[in-house]
Amino acid sequence: MRLMRLGAPGQERAHLLVGEDLVVDVSAEVGDFDGRFFGSDALTALRRDSAGLAARAGSLSSSGLRVGAPVAKPEKIICIGLNYADHAAETGQALPTEPIVFAKAPNTLVGPNDQVRIPRGSTKTDWEVELGVVIGRQCRYLSSEQEALEAVAGYLVCNDVSEREFQLERGGQWIKGKSCETFNPAGPWLVTADEVPDPQALGLWLDVNGERRQTGNTATMIFGVGAIIAYLSRFMVLEPGDIINTGTPPGVAMGQREPRYLRAGDVVELGIDGLGRQRQECVAAP
Amino acid sequence: MRLMRLGAPGQERAHLLVGEDLVVDVSAEVGDFDGRFFGSDALTALRRDSAGLAARAGSLSSSGLRVGAPVAKPEKIICIGLNYADHAAETGQALPTEPIVFAKAPNTLVGPNDQVRIPRGSTKTDWEVELGVVIGRQCRYLSSEQEALEAVAGYLVCNDVSEREFQLERGGQWIKGKSCETFNPAGPWLVTADEVPDPQALGLWLDVNGERRQTGNTATMIFGVGAIIAYLSRFMVLEPGDIINTGTPPGVAMGQREPRYLRAGDVVELGIDGLGRQRQECVAAP
Repeated sequence: MRLMRLGAPGQERAHLLVGEDLVVDVSAEVGDFDGRFFGSDALTALRRDSAGLAARAGSLSSSGLRVGAPVAKPEKIICIGLNYADHAAETGQALPTEPIVFAKAPNTLVGPNDQVRIPRGSTKTDWEVELGVVIGRQCRYLSSEQEALEAVAGYLVCNDVSEREFQLERGGQWIKGKSCETFNPAGPWLVTADEVPDPQALGLWLDVNGERRQTGNTATMIFGVGAIIAYLSRFMVLEPGDIINTGTPPGVAMGQREPRYLRAGDVVELGIDGLGRQRQECVAAP
Repeated sequence: MRLMRLGAPGQERAHLLVGEDLVVDVSAEVGDFDGRFFGSDALTALRRDSAGLAARAGSLSSSGLRVGAPVAKPEKIICIGLNYADHAAETGQALPTEPIVFAKAPNTLVGPNDQVRIPRGSTKTDWEVELGVVIGRQCRYLSSEQEALEAVAGYLVCNDVSEREFQLERGGQWIKGKSCETFNPAGPWLVTADEVPDPQALGLWLDVNGERRQTGNTATMIFGVGAIIAYLSRFMVLEPGDIINTGTPPGVAMGQREPRYLRAGDVVELGIDGLGRQRQECVAAP
């Protein structure tokens, strides 16, 4: 299934995407796609009823409706740094021997086609296409990667927008360059885990102003999805609805010899095989 | 006013402390002490009605009731590192020129007298008494420290429990050693900002097994409360109910020549002038 949240910011309603473009409003059945939803058996119930729901679709098209992030109010957004060998190389850093973990403020979450705000004073706003993982049950001291993969509710596209000066030149700890408003476009869909047979075989891409900048495949992750979740569960309790951004492939601005960071007016487009695509216009933070 | 949340974990109800020990259940009036509460005018309304509420107190004593963290489900917990000059010295690190910012997972929050779980595999679990600040309105690009202080809902005691090996020896970014379950005892009360005339003149202390380990005063913070909030608002949007842990004074285990880290059975007691005291027994994570 593909889950979507449609509507104005803060007023999104839970929908299923049941065709190329047809959607069914399921907010009466499930409420919102939040931690409570992912932590209950509502996803299983939706899957059981999906044929009936699809029949109800009628002709409601998602065209023209704003698309929100497909997950509401995650308890946390956890990110993995330098998780593609070739990205680590381009940023001049050693390969990590354990996952590098940092956080993004959860209120960075916006829809896949919302504007990205260049922070006041920023000169180094950068892009990062990433496979996002949504957690489907509480995870604490998981014993295996298999158990970890069974805890995944689904997958989505994330842009882990980053301000490199804030992240690296302002006195320690990356969160400072990762948490500005609008810095986590997500979606358009959450694709449930049963429809992503191998999360380690997905192509990723990102364009800036129509020019290809990032190309990669989750096959080259240093730590795969199951390993990441099992590892994290030894250091924190993951909650249903949490989002994990699993790292970015090569091609970020920071890795260029003469970096061209994002400016107001730039357009970023990105996508992942089977998970849909995003388009963001950059604007100066008001 | 002093706000408390009393009841079993996950079932706490909002109370006002109206005397040495007398409490009034205000959950019918205000719901829970969460982001929605702090972002509304409910705190002002409570203050207006506090005399009437106190009269209603009757003889309900808080004795025997479990005390929860006085804030429910913060959107984020942000911490400031090395914010006392003497603590920076004891850990052998240079004085920061800008606040060092890191995050704790919000689900680390527990009551002030709940057990602290030593994580599986931990050998370096440490303590940190800190002044916690609760945000009372959305903060975005604040223009002054005065404006920042006006955005404070109140203050509370926090123990920013830290696993030093996870934090510093496991491959980058402190969050890994800050986010284990039970790692943020908070409370017993949130004391509203109007009753804390100078947050930069509060004594802090912490004992382990009855032996004084930390003694300090918020007067020696490198970056004061107003400066921290104004600074953070340039890098992220602070939300009502967010908790900011403002750093710890000297005396953590890591700073000792032969560190005696916490073990199951140890008892940690800590407090801040006017904000109450905590007592935690350490147990092995089950």
